[in-house]
Amino acid sequence: MSDPEFNKITPEIYKALKNIVGDKYIFTEKFDLEPYSHDETEDLVFYPEVAVLPASTKDISEIMSLCHENNIPVTTRGGGTGLSGGALPVYGGVILSTERLNRIIEIDTENLMAVVEPGVITHNLHQAAEEKGLFYPVDPASKESCTIGGNIAECAGGPRALKYGVTKDYVYGLTCVLPDGRVFKTGGKLLKNVSGYNLAQLIVGSEGTLCIATEIILKLLPLPTHKRTLLAPFDSLQDAAEALTQIFMKKIIPSAAEFIEQAAIKAAEDKYEKKFPHSDAVALLLFEVDGDREDVLDEQAEKIGEICVEYGAEDVFVADNPEKQEEMWQMRRNIGEAVKSIAIYKEEDTVVPRARLPELVEKISAISKKHGILTISYGHAGDGNIHCNIIKKDISDEDWNEKLPKVIEELFREVVILGGSISGEHGIGWVQKNYLPIALSKVELELMKKIKEVFDPKGILNPGKLLPDL
Amino acid sequence: MSDPEFNKITPEIYKALKNIVGDKYIFTEKFDLEPYSHDETEDLVFYPEVAVLPASTKDISEIMSLCHENNIPVTTRGGGTGLSGGALPVYGGVILSTERLNRIIEIDTENLMAVVEPGVITHNLHQAAEEKGLFYPVDPASKESCTIGGNIAECAGGPRALKYGVTKDYVYGLTCVLPDGRVFKTGGKLLKNVSGYNLAQLIVGSEGTLCIATEIILKLLPLPTHKRTLLAPFDSLQDAAEALTQIFMKKIIPSAAEFIEQAAIKAAEDKYEKKFPHSDAVALLLFEVDGDREDVLDEQAEKIGEICVEYGAEDVFVADNPEKQEEMWQMRRNIGEAVKSIAIYKEEDTVVPRARLPELVEKISAISKKHGILTISYGHAGDGNIHCNIIKKDISDEDWNEKLPKVIEELFREVVILGGSISGEHGIGWVQKNYLPIALSKVELELMKKIKEVFDPKGILNPGKLLPDL
Repeated sequence: MSDPEFNKITPEIYKALKNIVGDKYIFTEKFDLEPYSHDETEDLVFYPEVAVLPASTKDISEIMSLCHENNIPVTTRGGGTGLSGGALPVYGGVILSTERLNRIIEIDTENLMAVVEPGVITHNLHQAAEEKGLFYPVDPASKESCTIGGNIAECAGGPRALKYGVTKDYVYGLTCVLPDGRVFKTGGKLLKNVSGYNLAQLIVGSEGTLCIATEIILKLLPLPTHKRTLLAPFDSLQDAAEALTQIFMKKIIPSAAEFIEQAAIKAAEDKYEKKFPHSDAVALLLFEVDGDREDVLDEQAEKIGEICVEYGAEDVFVADNPEKQEEMWQMRRNIGEAVKSIAIYKEEDTVVPRARLPELVEKISAISKKHGILTISYGHAGDGNIHCNIIKKDISDEDWNEKLPKVIEELFREVVILGGSISGEHGIGWVQKNYLPIALSKVELELMKKIKEVFDPKGILNPGKLLPDL
Repeated sequence: MSDPEFNKITPEIYKALKNIVGDKYIFTEKFDLEPYSHDETEDLVFYPEVAVLPASTKDISEIMSLCHENNIPVTTRGGGTGLSGGALPVYGGVILSTERLNRIIEIDTENLMAVVEPGVITHNLHQAAEEKGLFYPVDPASKESCTIGGNIAECAGGPRALKYGVTKDYVYGLTCVLPDGRVFKTGGKLLKNVSGYNLAQLIVGSEGTLCIATEIILKLLPLPTHKRTLLAPFDSLQDAAEALTQIFMKKIIPSAAEFIEQAAIKAAEDKYEKKFPHSDAVALLLFEVDGDREDVLDEQAEKIGEICVEYGAEDVFVADNPEKQEEMWQMRRNIGEAVKSIAIYKEEDTVVPRARLPELVEKISAISKKHGILTISYGHAGDGNIHCNIIKKDISDEDWNEKLPKVIEELFREVVILGGSISGEHGIGWVQKNYLPIALSKVELELMKKIKEVFDPKGILNPGKLLPDL
């Protein structure tokens, strides 16, 4: 996939694209292309030559057929909330935005399945399911603006992944367009299906590099009616991690178990000029349990509280009504923005086996000290998935440019030594791809490259992503 | 993959194989090879030239390297309980049995993961996990003799799949040997991981055609301590199916919801010369709910009972102690054997969206009548996964040979019209492969063929399986 030689969009190709999507849904002016030139990954900007907004599988098939024939790169884009540059048109060409494919085709209450188009905002699916007493659990932080198609591309997670799993655990069927325009369906509303290789599971998390999902069948669950949210401040991260392990051993699987480092709370306090509870703790754990019976939840909340205190928490605070719960989550959600607003930053999405979290946090701290660079961590403790933000605070541009790659590489090497990997839920995309050989063997990378070639022999679909350059 | 031209095992190759595994672990005599010549698929028999019993990843790597170089077909075999012929050495060559790779390497109580070798008997993992208060939910009917490696090859299910999912939902990491002998690891003890394509999920369910898993990381859950088992006889299958849908809508996800057709119960009564409860019902539903709080389970059992009665069940019987529960399950497990002992049979593993089960059963009945051939169905109602047994009872060999392919093809076509597929948990293997084009499109099949070629360009690993001949 190195040095791809793509063609530019000629007036003829532009005209053909316009014929497919219609005058109103094709853009070439810089002003119109601006929204399609970046996602939420750092300050990266790449302009496409053209942005097209197809309305159907047929449109997408025709676009791909045209671009395939003419060797034009195509990058699919959902909500543009990605954190690894997956939707950036790094080789120009066409941005294919799924924003018009935004129909929730069906909430199937008999089979507990949803059928949706890729441009559906995740939160809209949450609401549509809830209206029928059902539940789509996957809840990335960007749920108000990210799309199901993007969630599938990245195999999105979120706090509830701990109990309910990630996007892959809900994808049961896909309609897809291949880079050459051919359309295929795989899977269905089937809880079990072993008729051939599981292409749907290969496509989930493939970051838009294999094909374009245009219709998606997702499993739904009954909607839990109640929850309890708990906040436990700890003086030691090791204690917090042990408490977490004990909670699992006591047969409680919380619907979330989030970790917030002191510096992250402080950052949120600074940004929002507001005092958060227990901001002097070394680490906060934020738990949620959900279910249908309040007595069971109270019992679970009590057990979690007891365990936390036993393992050194100063106290435990339980929110048993939606307002207080929202307040705790608000703090958690504010942290990302707050940390990122301190200075230029680079966010790494490290993941290790849950029990090795304290070691990971120690390693992060050691690497920070060694290089004299600020890092602030928070994330999904229950999944061992920590977002480590490397912050360019008081150091020069030169220092930053020199140190950053070293810090990242050391961090990733430590993660791999701990049995972990370099991305838990953000994906590899553009910004992590050349670190991938730290986590994956040559054999694995070779298999992945060949799988890419099976789907996309010309390499026109989301080029420059996921696979390392060399 | 059509008409592969493989080589025979020469004395030199035999000697090299013996050097790898040792004198005691290589067999060539017909008597010794007999156990490796069949699985549980009908009465099919194929002898390998040689059976080898490696003890390590290294052994397997060396065997594959040797066979790859010499173009010798290799078929991996676990417990030999497969129902689609996946472990049959249809082109002779080497049977590679995983029986000596039977170590449970670790039950990791901190990360709730197990690390096992592929030859571990599924039930042994159940027990090892239970001893530590943990739970490996996947429970194929053959759990006492099937292996984790075989379960991964077939993506095995079982009754508990309804609440807990199938094998793929538990596989988080694999060490694998490629057909050319190269070894790679993918995944890990990581609940979230989006570092490259999800090779582990592609390998699960690939029926031993892509590579050989030699070490497996599986997710475990806390062990539920209590259960309730219920039996509900219905006069109409439609009523039974509606009751089932209502149960899900009332937010209960049973850990099992099995369906047994009257003829299946009768067959079990005949075989075991024993009267089963409610054997005069048109359909029986067998439910199980599990959890940690008996009051919650009693409440769920009561709700299920009420719904069943509301939707026409004559009565509902609850087993709340292990002996009575085992009795109900005994009946369910006996049915497979009983139905198969009536006469020569062909079992199809149809799967449809759950709510379309009554239509599927009606179609099966219509096809039986049309061709004057006996069918008996039972299976996992909650998953829409019905095992339809076509029985050669009173018809001639000629009639059977003529009618059987027609019946199967008609059945599969109806299944696909209902939004279903041709195998829910048994796999495609040898016996279903030429029906696969009924369920999958040309595009999908082409992608699968090319994926096979990525892993196994010479086509030596489990040749003749999964992919259709043409």
